[in-house]
Amino acid sequence: VTVYLVGAGPGDPGLVTARGLELVRRCDALVYDRLVSGELVAEAPGDALRIGRADLSQAAVTDLLIRLGRQGLDVVRLKGGDPYTFGRGGEEALALAEAGIQFEVVPGVSSLAAVPGSAGIPITHRGTSSQATIVSGHDPSELDFGWLARSEGTLVFFMGLAALPAIADGLIGAGLAPDTPAAVISQGTTSEEASVAAPLGEIADAAGTLAPPALVVVGQVVSLAPKLRRREAHESERALAG
Amino acid sequence: VTVYLVGAGPGDPGLVTARGLELVRRCDALVYDRLVSGELVAEAPGDALRIGRADLSQAAVTDLLIRLGRQGLDVVRLKGGDPYTFGRGGEEALALAEAGIQFEVVPGVSSLAAVPGSAGIPITHRGTSSQATIVSGHDPSELDFGWLARSEGTLVFFMGLAALPAIADGLIGAGLAPDTPAAVISQGTTSEEASVAAPLGEIADAAGTLAPPALVVVGQVVSLAPKLRRREAHESERALAG
Repeated sequence: VTVYLVGAGPGDPGLVTARGLELVRRCDALVYDRLVSGELVAEAPGDALRIGRADLSQAAVTDLLIRLGRQGLDVVRLKGGDPYTFGRGGEEALALAEAGIQFEVVPGVSSLAAVPGSAGIPITHRGTSSQATIVSGHDPSELDFGWLARSEGTLVFFMGLAALPAIADGLIGAGLAPDTPAAVISQGTTSEEASVAAPLGEIADAAGTLAPPALVVVGQVVSLAPKLRRREAHESERALAG
Repeated sequence: VTVYLVGAGPGDPGLVTARGLELVRRCDALVYDRLVSGELVAEAPGDALRIGRADLSQAAVTDLLIRLGRQGLDVVRLKGGDPYTFGRGGEEALALAEAGIQFEVVPGVSSLAAVPGSAGIPITHRGTSSQATIVSGHDPSELDFGWLARSEGTLVFFMGLAALPAIADGLIGAGLAPDTPAAVISQGTTSEEASVAAPLGEIADAAGTLAPPALVVVGQVVSLAPKLRRREAHESERALAG
């Protein structure tokens, strides 16, 4: 294998997998997303090539991975969250396969449950929700609100903060009760985590000053948060294992 | 904190988080699920109390965690997958909160994307699926097949192998095309991984001899598997980082 598509987890660098961290620590080249923790980038060997992809298009990233792979380097492509959960890992893996470059996908902890969990919200909970639908909130005009509003479980919107008013209005317009519990969690699992909870009809106003990246959660499980939210400070526990 | 609810990941012991592994390595007591890898259990200190929960009811596990927590021990409750994704973590966390025991939830890599991914199936893929619904297949009589069949994205059933004929019939009866791609992955990410892919109308027969635990995936993303499946043996890479 020469190119590893590795999930870095939801933000807290301690939530990278043991295998992902091992691969970072012995790579020749590290290509990393903007949202990946600097602490993880710093784990690469001192002489490894480090390339932030913030200014690169997806096509340029794919070309870069193929080029590095052809040189026979051990390449780690470090992605926020999980490569196959809104991570565009499939696109990069397909391009590598078509170019004949060996690759391996190393899954990561997705934000989808870790970020709500950090705010005290289990996405499934016996008697409350036995299903969850995760969906991109990037373009609300592509969402089938009629279908989403009839979900009996938890709804989790990735990239939904900018369009939150349209998402809330769409769900309510399709029949979801305005008093359905909802929450927005910004920069979940990091020391900058901030969150608000409010009924769906008020969540867009309540989320006023929160910054992306953020996850939007809608469903009865949100009402568990006051009991399950961690109260102690724990930033000091966030360092990586040695 | 005295009780840590830690996700062990989907099976491959290298997919535990760095923080989860660190907590296992310094715990006083480890309470672990049947499906947790023996390699992870072996990472606990030699003098740590090790308690498999296979023969304990959920109520007994909860009582045990409270009792160990009251003794001031550092307790790791190691669960397969992610504690808050069909992991009953919410129930244990609520019981600890009500008993006044400090706890922390450490998320894990859920099977939901890692297991399909290991078989070459990304649960989301640009242009193919921008949403995924994860649902318990334990009791098909509780499923709203009419709603599930109208999903525009990927369906992932946990605990769905035993009821696979009823799940496939239910989806087809509700209007999902019998030629919708489907897959069953057994013991995903472990050295025992086995999987089959077939049209929804034939998947129950095709899955014939697969053993639980297994995940069922339904949706167009399954058709990417022939291109994205790993071909090389990689069992030797499965050891934990030192």
